[in-house]
Amino acid sequence: MNFKSDNAAGVCPEIMKALEVANIGFATSYGEDDYSKQLAKKVAEIFEHEVTIFLTSTGTAANCLSLSAIAPAYGTIYCHTNAHINTDECGAPELLIGAKLTVLGGAAGKINVQDLENQILFDADIRPHASKPAAISVTQLTEGGTVYSLQELQNIHACAQRHGLYVHMDGARCANALVSLGCTSAQMTWKSGIDVLSFGATKNGAMMAEMVVIFNQELAKDFDYRHKRAGQLLSKTRFEAAQFLAYFEHDLWLKNARHSNAMAQQLAAHMTAVPGVSIDHEIQGNELFVNMPSALADYLLQKGAHFYSWGPGVYRLVTSWATTAEEVAAFGKFVAGFKSASY
Amino acid sequence: MNFKSDNAAGVCPEIMKALEVANIGFATSYGEDDYSKQLAKKVAEIFEHEVTIFLTSTGTAANCLSLSAIAPAYGTIYCHTNAHINTDECGAPELLIGAKLTVLGGAAGKINVQDLENQILFDADIRPHASKPAAISVTQLTEGGTVYSLQELQNIHACAQRHGLYVHMDGARCANALVSLGCTSAQMTWKSGIDVLSFGATKNGAMMAEMVVIFNQELAKDFDYRHKRAGQLLSKTRFEAAQFLAYFEHDLWLKNARHSNAMAQQLAAHMTAVPGVSIDHEIQGNELFVNMPSALADYLLQKGAHFYSWGPGVYRLVTSWATTAEEVAAFGKFVAGFKSASY
Amino acid sequence: MNFKSDNAAGVCPEIMKALEVANIGFATSYGEDDYSKQLAKKVAEIFEHEVTIFLTSTGTAANCLSLSAIAPAYGTIYCHTNAHINTDECGAPELLIGAKLTVLGGAAGKINVQDLENQILFDADIRPHASKPAAISVTQLTEGGTVYSLQELQNIHACAQRHGLYVHMDGARCANALVSLGCTSAQMTWKSGIDVLSFGATKNGAMMAEMVVIFNQELAKDFDYRHKRAGQLLSKTRFEAAQFLAYFEHDLWLKNARHSNAMAQQLAAHMTAVPGVSIDHEIQGNELFVNMPSALADYLLQKGAHFYSWGPGVYRLVTSWATTAEEVAAFGKFVAGFKSASY
Amino acid sequence: MNFKSDNAAGVCPEIMKALEVANIGFATSYGEDDYSKQLAKKVAEIFEHEVTIFLTSTGTAANCLSLSAIAPAYGTIYCHTNAHINTDECGAPELLIGAKLTVLGGAAGKINVQDLENQILFDADIRPHASKPAAISVTQLTEGGTVYSLQELQNIHACAQRHGLYVHMDGARCANALVSLGCTSAQMTWKSGIDVLSFGATKNGAMMAEMVVIFNQELAKDFDYRHKRAGQLLSKTRFEAAQFLAYFEHDLWLKNARHSNAMAQQLAAHMTAVPGVSIDHEIQGNELFVNMPSALADYLLQKGAHFYSWGPGVYRLVTSWATTAEEVAAFGKFVAGFKSASY
Repeated sequence: MNFKSDNAAGVCPEIMKALEVANIGFATSYGEDDYSKQLAKKVAEIFEHEVTIFLTSTGTAANCLSLSAIAPAYGTIYCHTNAHINTDECGAPELLIGAKLTVLGGAAGKINVQDLENQILFDADIRPHASKPAAISVTQLTEGGTVYSLQELQNIHACAQRHGLYVHMDGARCANALVSLGCTSAQMTWKSGIDVLSFGATKNGAMMAEMVVIFNQELAKDFDYRHKRAGQLLSKTRFEAAQFLAYFEHDLWLKNARHSNAMAQQLAAHMTAVPGVSIDHEIQGNELFVNMPSALADYLLQKGAHFYSWGPGVYRLVTSWATTAEEVAAFGKFVAGFKSASY
Repeated sequence: MNFKSDNAAGVCPEIMKALEVANIGFATSYGEDDYSKQLAKKVAEIFEHEVTIFLTSTGTAANCLSLSAIAPAYGTIYCHTNAHINTDECGAPELLIGAKLTVLGGAAGKINVQDLENQILFDADIRPHASKPAAISVTQLTEGGTVYSLQELQNIHACAQRHGLYVHMDGARCANALVSLGCTSAQMTWKSGIDVLSFGATKNGAMMAEMVVIFNQELAKDFDYRHKRAGQLLSKTRFEAAQFLAYFEHDLWLKNARHSNAMAQQLAAHMTAVPGVSIDHEIQGNELFVNMPSALADYLLQKGAHFYSWGPGVYRLVTSWATTAEEVAAFGKFVAGFKSASY
Repeated sequence: MNFKSDNAAGVCPEIMKALEVANIGFATSYGEDDYSKQLAKKVAEIFEHEVTIFLTSTGTAANCLSLSAIAPAYGTIYCHTNAHINTDECGAPELLIGAKLTVLGGAAGKINVQDLENQILFDADIRPHASKPAAISVTQLTEGGTVYSLQELQNIHACAQRHGLYVHMDGARCANALVSLGCTSAQMTWKSGIDVLSFGATKNGAMMAEMVVIFNQELAKDFDYRHKRAGQLLSKTRFEAAQFLAYFEHDLWLKNARHSNAMAQQLAAHMTAVPGVSIDHEIQGNELFVNMPSALADYLLQKGAHFYSWGPGVYRLVTSWATTAEEVAAFGKFVAGFKSASY
Repeated sequence: MNFKSDNAAGVCPEIMKALEVANIGFATSYGEDDYSKQLAKKVAEIFEHEVTIFLTSTGTAANCLSLSAIAPAYGTIYCHTNAHINTDECGAPELLIGAKLTVLGGAAGKINVQDLENQILFDADIRPHASKPAAISVTQLTEGGTVYSLQELQNIHACAQRHGLYVHMDGARCANALVSLGCTSAQMTWKSGIDVLSFGATKNGAMMAEMVVIFNQELAKDFDYRHKRAGQLLSKTRFEAAQFLAYFEHDLWLKNARHSNAMAQQLAAHMTAVPGVSIDHEIQGNELFVNMPSALADYLLQKGAHFYSWGPGVYRLVTSWATTAEEVAAFGKFVAGFKSASY
């Protein structure tokens, strides 16, 4: 019963198998292998758009490199105050982009568009004392476990267009968001105004496979230099590309995401059956932020469930491709057991 | 007959097997897994010294992070003009360290110690107009394919000590150097004054496994922040650590290095049998820099051998754990064939 | 009637005279002149403490250099959301320090200490995902025109000490704050836990004279390199030092500050006599944030008064050493005139 | 007899007077004053070209900001190994530009164009492992005290054009070079392919007045942000602009430069009259690099002359606007006196 993080899960078997196959023989290094070339075509197909892609070993690198293509060092990037780039990347954006982050509030982990508009106007007005308004970064799944609707993305895009800003999507869990929205990859990204996407696969079954997907081809110019300079050009690139090829084969990525989303719904059903327990925000992906009595949390942890405390009285539970219905059922029994014992 | 790079080889079977084993079940992410903990102990054992280690996905990242611990952003790092950090890392040192590189000449890819001494004195004299002399970086195997002797390393260390500088070793091919010297890991590193080592495994049979080994424990303070901030803290760290554990098991790393060094010697024997062909520097590792007529080079390439041109009339051939005696023999036949045809 | 900024005033005559005197003859450059040496002693006297000083041409440079001594590039600096370093320095902190800013709210332009405490605890807890809690920056006068009391400074210092952080004071208008508090320079700085001070003179009568004052001498080590590297080591340093020597002579700096503070009080008296006009925060220095009808603002601007709009319905008026009682009286007449005309 | 540096001289009287005049009354800060506006027009006139200008307080800042407009952070800037940006700016280029410097040799302080060509080709060939070839920086007067001829500048420009690079001129002593060449400002700069110029006035009679002159207007876009972010946007800009206006009035700058160049020639005549004394390079500006016996150097220093040792047996003497014919004559007597005493 490990609900600590989708990172605690291993690599799904299809991807592990693909690594073995890719290991046969010699392959030119630094992106000149056949796997890398094949992947570029596959991603274009999936997104129904010309793309340039770059592979990275972490989401932090994918985010910061993506943003470095759309914000100059003297620019600022608007993001939610809870955005991963603001809270969990140890200043990597300031290092790898140079640019400043300007944080905004907003309910359910989503940027409030009116606040965004006001802040951009304010910053532009005092040029050059404030950094140049350059880009907006949205996280999909948000850090609140919610999903921006296509309309919400388009509202942000409209604001970006009014002021000449680019839009980035941190898609560490974009597969979960995509199956939640039930739309196409194109609809959730470039058709909603996304210029650059950090496309994560690690949390959804890969070993270490993150990707920058550039839709706006002007932004791809010289990106190879940025990528190399950040220490992200791996030598044996076939082993990154092969992970992604397996990830896309037979829609494995969507299958995995649907599974983990479904597991999250089942978990939620067990939790909310307990009086005094509530869940923050609508569950739209594979993350639950649960308000529960610490006695219940302690009881569950003691029973062998793993999850993190996420502030006073709040706990985060995350499901993954590897979460089984059996685990969830077993967890449900403990929850129910506590319920009957306590009330 | 692929002699392009040791990066063109795949992953050796022992390491691939280890990845499969490591994939079983859940494991806490971000270095809190059992593999990572076990590895820290193993590395201390190998180097007979207290160490702090950090894993990275590229050698560029390992080098720059290592150096960031020993050179402040206002410092300078002395290195050979051909050093990988100077020629092949696209400004990553300037980005990830902040510091300036000051380049020095020297025969056979090795820093000339008298020039080093003079440059440090000059820079210190005009403080603060020149950057602060902070660190020296040596590459072992050098970029010329040669090996610094223990005495040469100690001479550099003595210079460093006279002026209060730290010493870093770029060990992308350190296993090849180690077996060439026939000394212990301790002797080639901390006993010769190395403070921080970039320890590479990718070129010698791993998939993507590089490591920063810090001997001077004061330098390890806060390194976790540097590592995370550079986008190098992977989530599923077990898959990095497991590669290294297999790499060290039964001295696989030394076995692989001995093999590739031996293959390089055999290759050299074939080449030098041809009149008009010579080899730059003594071959001390798995790299050959061969001066040969372009007609010969073209002939070999046409016969299916792969290697890079390395300047006018110079060609680089690299062997690896995956190079077979059969390949080398086949290559030797082509070399011999060209000889008889041409003269 | 220029109340746009204390930067719109010129150089006070005593300082202009000092520049002429300093111009006689040759003087060694880069801080080796007699003026620079004399200044170092003078500042130590004023602050009753050993100090190391560095002169800069802008407050932005003074702030960022000060902070670079107390926050590593992987650290974070806590400041008020309205802090000049956050809103008006175009990402200079991110560039010159490397570090990330973490913004906090708080009434009257002052950091809320409980929020500060919570944020530090949160960031430390998720190490190394969040940047290292490193420093706190307070502005004195705050950006709200208010003054931190000695007790308030000490509360921040206590929080800093609990977590091992340094404290920086942005003293662009510290003379105004000092005379407002009526304490000694020592009391407002190192006796209240300030490690490094950005000491501004430009706004209070100098031409271009800002200074970093380091109280904690460990932090002064290598600062000369930081200073040079940021492009702030002027060649003809005598002309910077001479400004400060004149600024301190016969307490000119305190005299100027008392004058501008008094002018601000008089301005305020005129404004608040008008019904419907109010002033944000207590006036403790030389800045007024006035809520007034736009009709009144327009009327005053039309009459030749200069001041800035500072958001909807809010206007900022700033006095300086050069503001005359006559100007203020003339302004008062217009204010009174508008009053009788409108009501 | 102060020949240490042109920085040891004070401010010439015309400029000091201009500062006093500029001090009258209020003036809008941050470049919105009338002096700044007038200066922009004047510089366009002098260079017979549309220009955008930015003022800085140091040459280091002017150089690095200039280069930041023509080299991306992932780029490299080619310069002579003795270039001020390489040897005397403490890593400011790496900080303020981000980019890497690639150093080249060349006689008399001038870049060897064939070496330049080869290095650019090499770097481009291994893209993206080497930084992107982005810009070339030449110093005029060179660090050897020599002057690039117009033809030499055009040869560098031709190389730049072949590879799509920009060209920067570090003109810390460009007035001395200009009067030496006897050409127009336009000829020495944009007509010879210079895109951006660091135009220094401090060494030639100003107090602290350096300027970035951008000829290629595409490069001026967003430069205001770069300028502010580097801590170089002074508040009381009128005092920078007024220095330059006086500097250009009645060709004061050219008059000063002609004077110091003439003084250098006279100094040289005295020195070379001594057997055993020689001068490195042709004297084309206001700097002499003199090879002389240390006995002579010691004798002169003891007689009250001031100059710097510049390596074993080499001494640098610099003249300025403030050097008088009397000083030079007095120095000449000492030189002659030593001669008769010693031989």
